[in-house]
Amino acid sequence: MEALKKKILEEGSVIGTEIVKVDTFLNHQIDVKFLEKIGEEFRKRFADTEVDKILTVEAGGIAIACTTAECFGYPPVVFAKKAAPSTMNEGFYEAEARSFTKGTISRFKVDRKFIKPGERVMILDDFLASGEASVALSEIIEQGGAEVAGIGAVIEKGYQGGSERLRKKGYRVESLAVIRKIENGKVIFD
Amino acid sequence: MEALKKKILEEGSVIGTEIVKVDTFLNHQIDVKFLEKIGEEFRKRFADTEVDKILTVEAGGIAIACTTAECFGYPPVVFAKKAAPSTMNEGFYEAEARSFTKGTISRFKVDRKFIKPGERVMILDDFLASGEASVALSEIIEQGGAEVAGIGAVIEKGYQGGSERLRKKGYRVESLAVIRKIENGKVIFD
Repeated sequence: MEALKKKILEEGSVIGTEIVKVDTFLNHQIDVKFLEKIGEEFRKRFADTEVDKILTVEAGGIAIACTTAECFGYPPVVFAKKAAPSTMNEGFYEAEARSFTKGTISRFKVDRKFIKPGERVMILDDFLASGEASVALSEIIEQGGAEVAGIGAVIEKGYQGGSERLRKKGYRVESLAVIRKIENGKVIFD
Repeated sequence: MEALKKKILEEGSVIGTEIVKVDTFLNHQIDVKFLEKIGEEFRKRFADTEVDKILTVEAGGIAIACTTAECFGYPPVVFAKKAAPSTMNEGFYEAEARSFTKGTISRFKVDRKFIKPGERVMILDDFLASGEASVALSEIIEQGGAEVAGIGAVIEKGYQGGSERLRKKGYRVESLAVIRKIENGKVIFD
């Protein structure tokens, strides 16, 4: 998605050789109008895909899941929680995701009532790196007897192997901007 | 907002005498179409208010901040973070909010570059209880030399005194459904 690559180059900032910071429009400040264009792009790429529900994870994925839901005829959006609130009292599905960048492990939780057998659930997230988060979300979908309709990421760090890992599991993956490498403080796209 | 009260009565569930769980449409599963109606209601109630930016807090406020931004002509949405990511390296404003229900203290953080002197910033959140979160967000706005344009909450727990506290500070508060009390497992609205 050319408009997205342009925005990353103009507004993003590089930290070291691994991290691109896009907090001006994606995951701290949010440019809702631009995220609606991202939603339309996901709709185009998954034009032939039936989507009953969108699953993401707090907090970075919530905004794009919502603007994308508009473009898919408003399926319910569910976001996995990283901590179980005291009100999550009816049992939940759970899966573990390691963040290699942060060196932390999160346990994603989704209330059982929000994943139903036979549903086609699309996974969306702001970043796709090693694929750990998407794998954890796909495990939750499968625990509920539902099916992964596809996986969409706004920005993929191509050098971390996540999309390859997910495609090997048989999932369709669409990333709107794939970063091949970061070199001399510059982002190089595929 | 009658449609909201109806939805709370139909889909919400009461836990004890203090908590109403609305995870089917507001803060775990998200009904984006309904949240767009909530955005329109905020626009009506703040029809005479100039809004340069919307400030909320992760994760519960992000969805309604995004759908409301659409109705206000797409001002940027900023969500305060409860933990500083490693990429938040240019300094941030910070304020403390105690959760009386959870017995925890959060330190809300907003990168300094997202609050600018003279801006009119609207605070939005899913719940208004004691007002601690809104007070913390208003402190962040004032640290940045900006101004609170108003405070909007989807659901107010009227019995926790938050709106009174905020109005005493001179802020305009609009809550779309005010719960007067919870009695015998039932929600009673104002």
